[in-house]
Amino acid sequence: MSFRKKTMQELGRSASESLKIPLVLVLDNVRSAQNVGSLFRSADAFGVDHIHLCGITAQPPHREILKTALGATSSVAWTYHASSRDALQRLSDQGYTLCALEQSHDSRSLQDWQWTDVQAHVALILGNEVKGVEQSLLDQCDDVLEITQVGQKHSLNVAVSGGIAMHHIYQTFAARESQK
Amino acid sequence: MSFRKKTMQELGRSASESLKIPLVLVLDNVRSAQNVGSLFRSADAFGVDHIHLCGITAQPPHREILKTALGATSSVAWTYHASSRDALQRLSDQGYTLCALEQSHDSRSLQDWQWTDVQAHVALILGNEVKGVEQSLLDQCDDVLEITQVGQKHSLNVAVSGGIAMHHIYQTFAARESQK
Repeated sequence: MSFRKKTMQELGRSASESLKIPLVLVLDNVRSAQNVGSLFRSADAFGVDHIHLCGITAQPPHREILKTALGATSSVAWTYHASSRDALQRLSDQGYTLCALEQSHDSRSLQDWQWTDVQAHVALILGNEVKGVEQSLLDQCDDVLEITQVGQKHSLNVAVSGGIAMHHIYQTFAARESQK
Repeated sequence: MSFRKKTMQELGRSASESLKIPLVLVLDNVRSAQNVGSLFRSADAFGVDHIHLCGITAQPPHREILKTALGATSSVAWTYHASSRDALQRLSDQGYTLCALEQSHDSRSLQDWQWTDVQAHVALILGNEVKGVEQSLLDQCDDVLEITQVGQKHSLNVAVSGGIAMHHIYQTFAARESQK
């Protein structure tokens, strides 16, 4: 066995070879442009179809976003909405299952969440670095997903927790597709 | 069902209530202090026992680390090593299974990796933001884990990929424990 690192050429993937899944991201007042950039990069990696940037969330082009997104702002479509509430309402009207990533009562462990046939389209809602997802938005959601943590702190960076959630959601989507 | 957000008091967990698992992190020349801080925060969340900071990796106390670690530098023990190679050798001598997170030939999909009884202790090795884990270190490893990606880019931020890997490794450890 030889763990030879893959070259850029071996890793290359064109736009037509890349995959999109019926998953969109909603960023509710994400303050840091670096986090937004990192979330674009993870969204590209895990097939996210669209990012809805809401409220005070920074928008491309922005120096800090471009620096951390490493080109992903051109491979993932996005839209800006002044109101997170209106954005969620529109997605709900379009048939999206609204899943927030938050630490709340009646939340479900992310690990237990599977993409079933009930969910045609899924929207993953991520919140502000300090305040999290607004309570009024949680009240609009169909589900709250929580990442099990066992440390003394009880928070993860939003780009990290968003990456973990997108990775899991992509994996359960791919598992469902492979069973069809 | 009411998705009422948990309060800080409801989330609180003391040092004695927090959990550590036999998992250590090795950071091989991680350039950004912000990434180091974020990795400390995720390490706290997923029970990482120790962080080995190697080569040019920044060490606490450092303004940028403290800003992003949000206190986790005091809840996760760490050691600095000038040489990543020596650090890995020592961990191998101590019986650690060395698993690098990288995109290489003969890598294993992270999702397929399970913590079995063969592995008493696991070391997860993360590499530099641009160059990844050094080839010479990969050659020392028992396993290379790769995160499946489907986008046009082919890289994730190291704090994000590290968080995804720690989350998965913690989950498989917990699953094994619950079966005992």
